[in-house]
Amino acid sequence: MPELRKDPVTGRWVIIATDRARRPSDFTRHTVVLKGGFCPFCPGNESKTPPEILAYRNGSERDKPGWSVRVVPNKFPALGIEGNLDRRAEGMYDRMNGIGAHEVIIETPNHRQTLADMAEKGIEDVLWAFRDRIVDLKQDRRFKYILIFKNHGEPAGATLEHPHCQLIALPIVPRQVMEELEGANRYYKLKERCIFCDIVHQESSAEEARLVAQNRGFVTISPYAPRFPFETCILPTNHEAAFENTSAADFQNLAKMIRLVIAKMDAVLERPAYNMVLHTAPLAWQEHAEYYHWHIELIPKLTKVAGFEWGTGFYINPTSPEEAARYLREAVVDVPEMAGTR
Amino acid sequence: MPELRKDPVTGRWVIIATDRARRPSDFTRHTVVLKGGFCPFCPGNESKTPPEILAYRNGSERDKPGWSVRVVPNKFPALGIEGNLDRRAEGMYDRMNGIGAHEVIIETPNHRQTLADMAEKGIEDVLWAFRDRIVDLKQDRRFKYILIFKNHGEPAGATLEHPHCQLIALPIVPRQVMEELEGANRYYKLKERCIFCDIVHQESSAEEARLVAQNRGFVTISPYAPRFPFETCILPTNHEAAFENTSAADFQNLAKMIRLVIAKMDAVLERPAYNMVLHTAPLAWQEHAEYYHWHIELIPKLTKVAGFEWGTGFYINPTSPEEAARYLREAVVDVPEMAGTR
Repeated sequence: MPELRKDPVTGRWVIIATDRARRPSDFTRHTVVLKGGFCPFCPGNESKTPPEILAYRNGSERDKPGWSVRVVPNKFPALGIEGNLDRRAEGMYDRMNGIGAHEVIIETPNHRQTLADMAEKGIEDVLWAFRDRIVDLKQDRRFKYILIFKNHGEPAGATLEHPHCQLIALPIVPRQVMEELEGANRYYKLKERCIFCDIVHQESSAEEARLVAQNRGFVTISPYAPRFPFETCILPTNHEAAFENTSAADFQNLAKMIRLVIAKMDAVLERPAYNMVLHTAPLAWQEHAEYYHWHIELIPKLTKVAGFEWGTGFYINPTSPEEAARYLREAVVDVPEMAGTR
Repeated sequence: MPELRKDPVTGRWVIIATDRARRPSDFTRHTVVLKGGFCPFCPGNESKTPPEILAYRNGSERDKPGWSVRVVPNKFPALGIEGNLDRRAEGMYDRMNGIGAHEVIIETPNHRQTLADMAEKGIEDVLWAFRDRIVDLKQDRRFKYILIFKNHGEPAGATLEHPHCQLIALPIVPRQVMEELEGANRYYKLKERCIFCDIVHQESSAEEARLVAQNRGFVTISPYAPRFPFETCILPTNHEAAFENTSAADFQNLAKMIRLVIAKMDAVLERPAYNMVLHTAPLAWQEHAEYYHWHIELIPKLTKVAGFEWGTGFYINPTSPEEAARYLREAVVDVPEMAGTR
């Protein structure tokens, strides 16, 4: 019997079509292989990108090799950084200028190094770069939200191979973030508790059903009502609305957790293409401090999304989260320095 | 300068990245060609599907050839028809049995006939089949919503070539429908008018900017804030919440409009894969009668959706709706019997 499950935050129902149960080997594999070739993000080609906004270097010169993480403006930005919003009506409609920042965070100088093979310190640096860019862009009063995401592999929408994340600063809060904020606020009004804290508590005390991994600062779970097979969510154990308020110790724990979970996903699904999205509070996070709780969504690209999901927002997931979590939990991976991780 | 535009119903902002302006010829083409071969939906193979639920025939026998439209249960249903919902909690979560109907509406006995080549009467029959199935399934008190959609071509999620639509009856109202209902209700409370009626009025009286076509009963527009290039929306001119309440005259007008718009889309985009989704009120439509207004969304599958849209609900559209509407409006198509259509 298939099941209908409701996402507790957004209220979205999904079908978990257990009758069609899908194991990892049932999906068509598209292993992501980083081939190399000329690359504007590789060291030595710094002049092929716009001038850098931020880089962590060992004393080397700006826009020259010698960096570990490098942030540059997107060469083909979806939004323009100069100008005023100029909010206005158009008959009954609302529009404004497409003002925003669109940046690229180059994660490593090494073209072939993924988040699963990087040293813990390297991932930590990427997380610090997220934080530093958020803190800087926050000063621009035109912006209300910062989206940080990663498209890994061409099926997930990556157009350049070299490991990188993207950052988009927006003058609005995207609809899906609003939905999470509203859902979390509804729950808070009813219970006077953060819904994500309740999820962390329920999932880490249940008999492992949907738990993938946990360490000192984070848990990774298969969400109760996932839209996609093998979707996971990384949540900080302690309540915190905004990613940029994370402590140095927790950036270390998060780096460990990201490396572990991606290594597990790579093992179970043979290095799939995936999307990683940071869900953090709007820049005015204080308004949402009590009920919002930042987290990271990780979605391997396994299924051809049957088009009707676009039109309906309704999802049929062929793999139950308990099944997915079991495969991921049991995957043995060779990730060193995992002290503190179960 | 790119623009940010807000969908008036859902409140979703999208980027119209006019700097990257995309004409029809800039998209990779995947023309849908119906190849034939063995097909369980072709006449003569009626025994290869579950027994029919409905068919329009010229006196021929049940589950035999001689039909013009035929409705059968999906052989691999996402939901089961037997049993109780058994709504229950699982800790803090909500679930119920996956009860529902999953049916296939076979549009024509002719394997190679698309909505653009069918006779007007054939499309009308398909629309009557939608109505007849809705009216029948409505009697089942377990159901709250009926989704009707079409995946045309493999890139849009079709697994069988033979022209068909799908129907899913659900015991819940999907999240995206809820969003439309809530948005339309907010507007109604503010203005005491239907937002869709206002859209129809504004779009058909403007200097054609986003108007694709209109006839006696319907308008087709490029929405003001579309998520996808060449997305269109077909709306009845007169206010009506529920598709099944449409008059016989309007089914005729709608059949004409669908054929025209798909022929235009086929001409401009070289017979692309597409999704068509009916947005109608929940089965208890009376509650929403004043502010909801049914419509059809038509989305050609042109872009590889960059994965981050899944995680964020945030869309970047490279083609402005004014540009898309102009191409579609100016496309000359050979569709006979278009009396009453501009």
